[in-house]
Amino acid sequence: MFSMQRINPKDTSYDDAKMIIGGIPFDGTVCYRPGTRFGPKHIRNEFYALETYSPFLDLDLMDYDVFDIGDMDLPIGDTPLVIDTIYNAASKLIKDNKVPFFLGGEHLVSFPCIKAAFEKYADLYVIHLDAHTDTRDIYFGNKLSHANIIRRCWDFLGDNRIYQFGIRSGSRDEFYWSLKDNHTIMRKFDLGGLSLLPDKLKDKSVYVTVDLDVLDPSIFPGTGTPEAGGITYKEIEELFLVMGKLNIVGADIVELSPDYDTSGVSTAVAAKVLREMMLSIVKNK
Amino acid sequence: MFSMQRINPKDTSYDDAKMIIGGIPFDGTVCYRPGTRFGPKHIRNEFYALETYSPFLDLDLMDYDVFDIGDMDLPIGDTPLVIDTIYNAASKLIKDNKVPFFLGGEHLVSFPCIKAAFEKYADLYVIHLDAHTDTRDIYFGNKLSHANIIRRCWDFLGDNRIYQFGIRSGSRDEFYWSLKDNHTIMRKFDLGGLSLLPDKLKDKSVYVTVDLDVLDPSIFPGTGTPEAGGITYKEIEELFLVMGKLNIVGADIVELSPDYDTSGVSTAVAAKVLREMMLSIVKNK
Amino acid sequence: MFSMQRINPKDTSYDDAKMIIGGIPFDGTVCYRPGTRFGPKHIRNEFYALETYSPFLDLDLMDYDVFDIGDMDLPIGDTPLVIDTIYNAASKLIKDNKVPFFLGGEHLVSFPCIKAAFEKYADLYVIHLDAHTDTRDIYFGNKLSHANIIRRCWDFLGDNRIYQFGIRSGSRDEFYWSLKDNHTIMRKFDLGGLSLLPDKLKDKSVYVTVDLDVLDPSIFPGTGTPEAGGITYKEIEELFLVMGKLNIVGADIVELSPDYDTSGVSTAVAAKVLREMMLSIVKNK
Amino acid sequence: MFSMQRINPKDTSYDDAKMIIGGIPFDGTVCYRPGTRFGPKHIRNEFYALETYSPFLDLDLMDYDVFDIGDMDLPIGDTPLVIDTIYNAASKLIKDNKVPFFLGGEHLVSFPCIKAAFEKYADLYVIHLDAHTDTRDIYFGNKLSHANIIRRCWDFLGDNRIYQFGIRSGSRDEFYWSLKDNHTIMRKFDLGGLSLLPDKLKDKSVYVTVDLDVLDPSIFPGTGTPEAGGITYKEIEELFLVMGKLNIVGADIVELSPDYDTSGVSTAVAAKVLREMMLSIVKNK
Amino acid sequence: MFSMQRINPKDTSYDDAKMIIGGIPFDGTVCYRPGTRFGPKHIRNEFYALETYSPFLDLDLMDYDVFDIGDMDLPIGDTPLVIDTIYNAASKLIKDNKVPFFLGGEHLVSFPCIKAAFEKYADLYVIHLDAHTDTRDIYFGNKLSHANIIRRCWDFLGDNRIYQFGIRSGSRDEFYWSLKDNHTIMRKFDLGGLSLLPDKLKDKSVYVTVDLDVLDPSIFPGTGTPEAGGITYKEIEELFLVMGKLNIVGADIVELSPDYDTSGVSTAVAAKVLREMMLSIVKNK
Amino acid sequence: MFSMQRINPKDTSYDDAKMIIGGIPFDGTVCYRPGTRFGPKHIRNEFYALETYSPFLDLDLMDYDVFDIGDMDLPIGDTPLVIDTIYNAASKLIKDNKVPFFLGGEHLVSFPCIKAAFEKYADLYVIHLDAHTDTRDIYFGNKLSHANIIRRCWDFLGDNRIYQFGIRSGSRDEFYWSLKDNHTIMRKFDLGGLSLLPDKLKDKSVYVTVDLDVLDPSIFPGTGTPEAGGITYKEIEELFLVMGKLNIVGADIVELSPDYDTSGVSTAVAAKVLREMMLSIVKNK
Repeated sequence: MFSMQRINPKDTSYDDAKMIIGGIPFDGTVCYRPGTRFGPKHIRNEFYALETYSPFLDLDLMDYDVFDIGDMDLPIGDTPLVIDTIYNAASKLIKDNKVPFFLGGEHLVSFPCIKAAFEKYADLYVIHLDAHTDTRDIYFGNKLSHANIIRRCWDFLGDNRIYQFGIRSGSRDEFYWSLKDNHTIMRKFDLGGLSLLPDKLKDKSVYVTVDLDVLDPSIFPGTGTPEAGGITYKEIEELFLVMGKLNIVGADIVELSPDYDTSGVSTAVAAKVLREMMLSIVKNK
Repeated sequence: MFSMQRINPKDTSYDDAKMIIGGIPFDGTVCYRPGTRFGPKHIRNEFYALETYSPFLDLDLMDYDVFDIGDMDLPIGDTPLVIDTIYNAASKLIKDNKVPFFLGGEHLVSFPCIKAAFEKYADLYVIHLDAHTDTRDIYFGNKLSHANIIRRCWDFLGDNRIYQFGIRSGSRDEFYWSLKDNHTIMRKFDLGGLSLLPDKLKDKSVYVTVDLDVLDPSIFPGTGTPEAGGITYKEIEELFLVMGKLNIVGADIVELSPDYDTSGVSTAVAAKVLREMMLSIVKNK
Repeated sequence: MFSMQRINPKDTSYDDAKMIIGGIPFDGTVCYRPGTRFGPKHIRNEFYALETYSPFLDLDLMDYDVFDIGDMDLPIGDTPLVIDTIYNAASKLIKDNKVPFFLGGEHLVSFPCIKAAFEKYADLYVIHLDAHTDTRDIYFGNKLSHANIIRRCWDFLGDNRIYQFGIRSGSRDEFYWSLKDNHTIMRKFDLGGLSLLPDKLKDKSVYVTVDLDVLDPSIFPGTGTPEAGGITYKEIEELFLVMGKLNIVGADIVELSPDYDTSGVSTAVAAKVLREMMLSIVKNK
Repeated sequence: MFSMQRINPKDTSYDDAKMIIGGIPFDGTVCYRPGTRFGPKHIRNEFYALETYSPFLDLDLMDYDVFDIGDMDLPIGDTPLVIDTIYNAASKLIKDNKVPFFLGGEHLVSFPCIKAAFEKYADLYVIHLDAHTDTRDIYFGNKLSHANIIRRCWDFLGDNRIYQFGIRSGSRDEFYWSLKDNHTIMRKFDLGGLSLLPDKLKDKSVYVTVDLDVLDPSIFPGTGTPEAGGITYKEIEELFLVMGKLNIVGADIVELSPDYDTSGVSTAVAAKVLREMMLSIVKNK
Repeated sequence: MFSMQRINPKDTSYDDAKMIIGGIPFDGTVCYRPGTRFGPKHIRNEFYALETYSPFLDLDLMDYDVFDIGDMDLPIGDTPLVIDTIYNAASKLIKDNKVPFFLGGEHLVSFPCIKAAFEKYADLYVIHLDAHTDTRDIYFGNKLSHANIIRRCWDFLGDNRIYQFGIRSGSRDEFYWSLKDNHTIMRKFDLGGLSLLPDKLKDKSVYVTVDLDVLDPSIFPGTGTPEAGGITYKEIEELFLVMGKLNIVGADIVELSPDYDTSGVSTAVAAKVLREMMLSIVKNK
Repeated sequence: MFSMQRINPKDTSYDDAKMIIGGIPFDGTVCYRPGTRFGPKHIRNEFYALETYSPFLDLDLMDYDVFDIGDMDLPIGDTPLVIDTIYNAASKLIKDNKVPFFLGGEHLVSFPCIKAAFEKYADLYVIHLDAHTDTRDIYFGNKLSHANIIRRCWDFLGDNRIYQFGIRSGSRDEFYWSLKDNHTIMRKFDLGGLSLLPDKLKDKSVYVTVDLDVLDPSIFPGTGTPEAGGITYKEIEELFLVMGKLNIVGADIVELSPDYDTSGVSTAVAAKVLREMMLSIVKNK
């Protein structure tokens, strides 16, 4: 009569599941309360109440096997150790031939996940939706922060491997750095060109990282640095179609900071994006 | 020097009025506070401060006779009795040759209103704007809930009488049920085809029920189940034009849950939708 | 590395546990969102972050065996069936010789729990902390609502069995009804006389039901009907001392409506009351 | 079946009523939205849901005749004209031998009401509860503002007529001005000495003006200038007992700014203070 | 190691600066707290954290000289004196050959600024973005309010000088008044025709006043009178391009009421609009 | 006519001032938005609007010389470097014979300030008000966090030098550690014994660090980890009296997290505590 809440509506086990959902409640802060570390819990609460059927994709989660392994326990205040812990967890999932889907947390959590994916899939490409460039080399003396996650991925991925969309904020240096040698292939402001990727990346391994602040703050106010001029929910639906035509080996959604949106809309949006991305991936597995 | 607040700007009496505004503060809950039962009061507060002139329609409420009869007193906790009470009130208004315009409350309140209208107007068609299908037969063992209001109307209206717009959430069964035998004519995601209705429904009686969550949560966060991917306010303005070309015999707006939007924008939107819908109807009466 | 959140800090199993924590996310409403049904989830989230040690009681939860069985799945909209479902679950726990501790939900959920306890413990007394009398016989035509939960318990417990504290709101009839024949022993406004109960109820079985709105709205604003003039947190600490001297066979805390307190303080208070009450009970088991 | 909401639970008419409730939704601002002008509407909404019986006073509003005449329509932006309009309305009520009870609005609205009372009752004394002195002569070049309402009343009442309680903020000059010649009899921080007033003011006419920010911000955060160190709700209950022993000829409660307290507690407190003050007055009329 | 926050990222002095930023924290209210008077402080707080580079304009504030002179000290409660004070300050800046950029405050603050500009630049044109007409002659007996700021400018500018965009609320009289003799050139609902102004106003002096409520409440809820149907952030970007082709002699943004948007998005939008408008102006100076 | 906001009401310079106010906007997080780093700005905004006169102390800030040097610029994400930077700034102030008064920020910022004070004043004692022990040695593998600030001070201060008040949360080990050898002199739950300190610490140097969460969450909800059962504002006033009898060489207030209290009360409380503490210190200098 009682039940613990699960993100997967079916009674799938870890072994049977193709896709594993895991929360990474990290926001790099030593204090207990604010921020994106509450993201995974809030997304779960909302996801549980959501329909399993997507009218947009005409797919139903009840037809697929996913498993929610809960949230990571992370050492507070020691960022390098946090990164290691996430990396080990992601590596384990990928070695087990799972498609991991991580719920952030701040954007930095994507770095060890992408690194773990790259070590298995040498042909890895990254699709990155974000309002911010995230390509600083050093940020306030720091090489590991939410502001240089993409730069750290470039360190091992190299040029021509990172597709950025929706970017509308950063320093001048960052924007010019991307242009040089195709460090990243950046599309400013919207998702233009996204629909060409299934052709370009055919037979490649792809990791998708979505900083939810790529959405306009009108529909996603619950994030740390809201940036006007973002894409609408209807625009991001193109991503779900594109993902359905790619070989996705990992994905994440990050930067929901639920306490900043007392209406709960941001969390509802995150949960819906999660469902659509999950369906886009698992239908091919 | 003092005055009680009225939704009609002129001193129209019940007898002189063509249109009657009434609140149905029901959300089916035994506890006092949360939810849509606060909708009518909040809409009135906001409506009172709104201009009476619509630049979009170039019409002014000061030119028409409407009367606000206040809110219904409803027995808490006994849903069937609530439905009966609403039904009797709506029947009385319709027998008095009024066009009733109800302010919800949850969507279930539309059911007895549409039933009362159907008993007078055998040629009744329903235009239904909503994010959700609302066509479950049984919902958690229940035949009378906000999740099956449209199904209950179909019970007596039959096929081909219900036009649904903006639908973007529901179970797979509900979506397929609508398709079968034109149980309902459903337009997913937007208002496509709405402008064709004046031709199709010429000389018919029409009831319009607007679940305000058809609007995108970016502009209408103050509702129980916000669902991303909705229509904008500019898109819903097409409804006002279409209504002006139809024979509207009743209407309602439901599902404003004002406490969930501390900015007050959702209530302001509801009040403006009310003004535009009222003008679209009364200009023909 | 990942873990599902548990309310018990140790890895106790159901079989080993003396006390079972269970959520009853019911607020009697047909619509998804508002109200006390979100209470259990929010209390869990907060409880997880709380210290296990109580400086006030000098006791630590790590020393005791408790088990969290999660939340009940309840049929929406059919109150009698909900009551039955809760009753069956509570009866099962009590038959298994567990001390159940329920997290509401609205106050009505206490009724089937107390009834289940009474059927095993014929000498059952109830200690009831609340801002409201809750002793109406009929409330808006309804015999089963949050406004008559205590009256329904009196139906089977009879006179002299219910101790009420902190009461400061109700109809005149309710207050006078309590006085007659000691229907209930009511203390208005505060906890005066509570410390005498260990003597009076020595060797009796006791169920404690705490409507958290007994606390002053200054410290507990997140509830459906806040009522000024309540007790402080330091005053309610007397309850924890008294409970430690009684034979408690069941308990609950109800009426947290977390969305009404965006600061999160109400939820933090509920979690702390839960810890102190748990410790007061389990130290004797 | 429908009804307009009334603050009086019985169907009393203006003519039959001893006490008249009227809202003065003024906060001196040219813009539509923020502030205390929303006070009367919010208090009404809450009052309507409140029990009519007071356990503290053991009195029930159903036994008395009060009438709610609604809110005043006030010219925006022209403070002197607003003051005149309030004055005329208050004078009319007092000439009709009513006891007026006004709901603010900002504190300045009390000035014309007290003036109108003084013109009928030459022996008028004022009891003033507030966090702030409100006795500046000129405030930013202004003689008529919420910061000098009490000074303006002193202009016509003179020394020894104004009893102030709970004062804990103001300029040094104001505090010293009060001391001089008993301009006002000021009690700082609490209600000490209030219980002596029934003896002192026997056979006198008394007007009671309560700036609700006299309450501690913990229980009344919804006000313009919250000032820590205020009185609790239980402390203000002494006022209700004292009022029951005085000849009250008018009263008001002011400075609820409901939008600043999203929990709704401040409004609930204001409604309860209103009920207790009403009962304290009408039981003698 | 410590520093006072400045809106200009470089250490420009007043004398070196082309553009001067100044706050006008006026909302015409006698009470301390609510409203647009908090606009300047909140915009500064947010602006400080914003990138100095605009990807949309490909310009960086680090390349230009601007100076922030802080906020005006204004006499509370005496509107004519406030207007004079603003007028004198604006005149001084303009005489010093600065381009002033004011941060409101309510819209009325634009009137003395535009007047000061007109006295130096006889060929002054005004571009006015707003949801509201603001062209009432008398508003509740008042000639100087946020509702007639544009009418007061017309008094001295005359016909054909004021371009209005985005207007979607006002009285019928106001809309018809604009039409007559081109009192103002009004574009309802959107920015249609804005791109033609560089041709029309070549060699003219232009003042741009942006009531931020021209934006849709979905992206800008934090304002006094939110009005659905506004323009998106991407639409307002056209203004920045157009301004870059005009001779701007002064500008302002008004009507941010930050407390009404607890998510902080409205303030973030205001700060970004400020940056883009600043860059559009200073690149030509 | 324009002015930058200052925390000192007089035009005191750094050289003339006895007391220096400085903000330390650090909350140890790599992301921009949430938390206590917004504390200093919010306190300043509120302080600016506060009366300079304290009725409780009968002292006026206008009579004393204080200087506000603004907020520190801190390197994000590198905690050891942040600590060094604060330490250097505090040392400079103390060497200049100033009494520094710091505005946090999280509690960790007190550590380098107390260390700097200890290096000048070998007889330093610390008075510590807090809800939490803060005496962990290692917290999640970390020796420098808000949870071990007091333990790090003990490292150099040694036994018998730290007086703790109001403590009501921590691990069992921490509470027992304090007892041992008088590591700290801890008073649980309230300020009992505080009034004895002027005798005990006569002729000693004293640093006062106030974690504002020592206050009950009813009056101070805007903090990271609200803990019920705290002291009231009237209780903390005893601290101001005691401080007036001690030789205070430095002080701070920390842990205001303003975004968690949308009513603004927490910030108003912090500003008032700041004024009273400032007056208690400067009256002796």
